[in-house]
Amino acid sequence: MSQLVRLVECVPNFSEGRNIETIQKILVPFFMTTGVKLLDYSPDKDHNRTVVTIMGEPLSVKKAILEATGIAVQNIDLRNHRGAHPRMGAIDVVPFIPLQDYPMQEAIALARDTAQAMAEQYNLPVFLYEKAAAAPERENLANIRKGEFEGLGTKMLQPEWKPDFGPEQPHPSAGASAVGARMPLIAFNINLNTSNLDIANQIVRCIRHISGGLRYCKAMGVELKEKGMVQVSINMTDYTKTALYRVFEMVKFEARRYGVTIAGSEIIGLTPMEALLDAAVYYMQIENFSLKQVIENRMLE
Amino acid sequence: MSQLVRLVECVPNFSEGRNIETIQKILVPFFMTTGVKLLDYSPDKDHNRTVVTIMGEPLSVKKAILEATGIAVQNIDLRNHRGAHPRMGAIDVVPFIPLQDYPMQEAIALARDTAQAMAEQYNLPVFLYEKAAAAPERENLANIRKGEFEGLGTKMLQPEWKPDFGPEQPHPSAGASAVGARMPLIAFNINLNTSNLDIANQIVRCIRHISGGLRYCKAMGVELKEKGMVQVSINMTDYTKTALYRVFEMVKFEARRYGVTIAGSEIIGLTPMEALLDAAVYYMQIENFSLKQVIENRMLE
Repeated sequence: MSQLVRLVECVPNFSEGRNIETIQKILVPFFMTTGVKLLDYSPDKDHNRTVVTIMGEPLSVKKAILEATGIAVQNIDLRNHRGAHPRMGAIDVVPFIPLQDYPMQEAIALARDTAQAMAEQYNLPVFLYEKAAAAPERENLANIRKGEFEGLGTKMLQPEWKPDFGPEQPHPSAGASAVGARMPLIAFNINLNTSNLDIANQIVRCIRHISGGLRYCKAMGVELKEKGMVQVSINMTDYTKTALYRVFEMVKFEARRYGVTIAGSEIIGLTPMEALLDAAVYYMQIENFSLKQVIENRMLE
Repeated sequence: MSQLVRLVECVPNFSEGRNIETIQKILVPFFMTTGVKLLDYSPDKDHNRTVVTIMGEPLSVKKAILEATGIAVQNIDLRNHRGAHPRMGAIDVVPFIPLQDYPMQEAIALARDTAQAMAEQYNLPVFLYEKAAAAPERENLANIRKGEFEGLGTKMLQPEWKPDFGPEQPHPSAGASAVGARMPLIAFNINLNTSNLDIANQIVRCIRHISGGLRYCKAMGVELKEKGMVQVSINMTDYTKTALYRVFEMVKFEARRYGVTIAGSEIIGLTPMEALLDAAVYYMQIENFSLKQVIENRMLE
């Protein structure tokens, strides 16, 4: 039996959120490339930035990103760019996010190939970040982008800020880009049958990584005034290692000590199918389950 | 936001399980039609029958079925057909099975359109059955097929066995066909931590429709000698009305009265995604969940 189609998500950020004509030009390859779906784009005037979400077959995604890079380099001039969001390049960041059974190692290879092609075709310095980073100090995007476009020329004179690909000085108008790979995020909120924010915060301390909890869980307590409830607001940063249902069960058993129950939960935005299937498989104790048993997945073979 | 692509499954049965050349000819439209995926085909020599499983975009599925009907009518002669399985036609039965958010009413309309086109293009009498049936006594396929190919000429002389489409006498070599619509079946087995078959049978009586249980649940008790366990073997005939997790929870709480726990479960073959997502949504109390939040589904838009 054949493999499922390999799918990758990609969320390129462009440093233009005001000029509709430029934004439209940049979107063309995402609309037109076979094998690529444009899921969302949101231009932000204050940030002067457009975040685009696409998904598709890995090589088609690479192709669309390269075309969009060309359009961004040609049409965006960072020397005239003002906005609230930190940025260092016309196509500022390009994270690749593996879906289904596409391995992270291949998403990393795709990020590096794309970064190299961007550098070669457009004479653009490119830095690899997060899981695609070549060194630990480059994993954090904020480190790479620190100093922004205006500080880039000076920063890149330092040997430790030589780019991974492309020229050793910024592109005069398009600056530099960061290309990386990361796991999909899941935004998962759990509402508690109490209005006591202390209880939400106590539970947060138990579950989140930073205070001793689960490795790929970020969380904070939130007051829902209108509902008269509090919420444990969660970001799951790698659902393949810290399962969604595990966090849910943990919140449930920690809440129990206060005599508090779960009122409900919600998933904000998109989630990989597997995070939910994992939960069904856990709760119904399903043995030897394969993603290929999901009939709709067979359309993606 | 656009709808998900409408998907339908179809499981045509052809009265040829021995002549490889004929089987290969019949499979061509399922391999070649754009928008159709051939999921499985299993020729059976004893039954002298081939069961084909396809899925795809509704009109593409109809197109492939029509082409395959032509090939079957041309290449299969029921006058020389012997096999263990009851049959009345070259293309014997064609059930359409709606997936995702494709409504049953549209699957029924698709079945009827396809039946009419089969009748008109190949001068074939066609009976509608199950949810596509025009009268209650035609819902059960066994009623329609009773008497088989050999008895068809006499049977069709009776006014109540006039076909829904096509001529009022059998096709001389290809007989007649039954075209219908039904919900997907899910084969779901639950293993119990006991070797006592009586306990499985007691639970079966509680959950299955025929003895007072859930409307779309068939079940029987099975001994798993090698595992030293017993199994509640379940067929779910409409998971949209009788949820998979509901049967699981019911088996769990009925087993509890015997002090018996669930060892594990398994899904045999394919399942619609929604049956598992429903379970995840139930157990994790997810509110306002939509199939469109599953990122992989967006490839099917």
